[in-house]
This record gives sequence, C-alpha cells and structure tokens, in this order.
Amino acid sequence: MTKETAPVAAPEVPAELKRLRGSIDNLDATLVHVLAERFKLTQQVGELKARLALPSGDRSREEQQIKRLRNLAEESGLDPDFAESFINFVIREVIRHHERIKAN
Amino acid sequence: MTKETAPVAAPEVPAELKRLRGSIDNLDATLVHVLAERFKLTQQVGELKARLALPSGDRSREEQQIKRLRNLAEESGLDPDFAESFINFVIREVIRHHERIKAN
Repeated sequence: MTKETAPVAAPEVPAELKRLRGSIDNLDATLVHVLAERFKLTQQVGELKARLALPSGDRSREEQQIKRLRNLAEESGLDPDFAESFINFVIREVIRHHERIKAN
Repeated sequence: MTKETAPVAAPEVPAELKRLRGSIDNLDATLVHVLAERFKLTQQVGELKARLALPSGDRSREEQQIKRLRNLAEESGLDPDFAESFINFVIREVIRHHERIKAN
C-alpha cells in the first residue's frame, strides 16, 4: 500500500508516536530474547524433573515466584496484578512443556 | 516451616534445580523491569492518543508487531505461537489502559 492510498483509519503517524513505538519495539525484542532464554532454562528444569520423577508443577515455588514478582513490580512501577497474571501465563506454558517432556 | 517438618511433597531441592531456578529468577526480574518500562512508554502513547483523539487500538500496528515478534521468536528459539499469545496478552492490557486514560 502506498502513502497515497492509505485509508483514513491509518493517518500519518505523528513523530512522537513513531519515536515511542520505536522504543517499545526495542523493549519487545528484549522481552522475546529473555523469554527465549527463560524457556531454555525451564526446558532443563523439565528434563531434570523427569529424570528425578519430580512433579511438573510446584505450588510452593510458584507462590514464592508470584510474591517476589509482585514486590519487584511494585518497586518498578508495574501493576502487581499484571505481574501476577503475567507470571501465571508463563508458568502455565512451562508446565505444559514439562508435561510434554515427561510424556516423551 | 523447619527442614525437619518439610512435607514429602517438597523434598530437598537438588543443587542443579536450585541453580536453574536462581537464573530463572534473575530473568524474571529482568522481564518485570522491562515490562515496567514498556508500560511507561505505552502510558505516554495513551496520553498522546487521547490528546490527538486517535483510537486506542491500531490493528495494522498490532499485526506488524505480531509478525515481527514471531520472526524474532523463531530466530531466538522461542515458540512463535507463544510469542504471539504473549504480545496479545500485553496489548490487551495496554488497550485497557488507553481506554482508561481516554475516559479520564
């Protein structure tokens, strides 16, 4: 699509919005790379747990993680409820991976 | 709870698991801090959008973000479907914030 035919719903992006989006994109790249690294580690945890016949989930560990991340969120100005939803979202995916490792 | 009364379900954590969890905790702290910074930027985006009467969501921007993050995920060994769920999860929260800024 050329600029000439851009629909009314997508007006010229103001310079300030463009600048902010550039920084958001940089942070998103960081998030993806850190998450990739985190899943490499949880993959190792999954293999270790399968080898030692430990359960895939560990409720007391999860509670510690949630409490710690809520505190870190508060300190850094992130909504602690969002931090908790976020870590639960990640943990759900990790447990799914662990179950798959155990099944194989 | 002392070590003596630890329940059977929480056995002594093997050293290797402890090491991996320490690294996961470090990455989680990074994730929380990067997310905090990301929300500071989207807060500015929300205020700018409210001032310019731009819509809270921008479907073409979101599609670009998803495509880019799926590529970055693939390059870094993260499941692209997970990266897409993750960015959708974050964008939903951001749009909720933008709606709130507009309402105020």
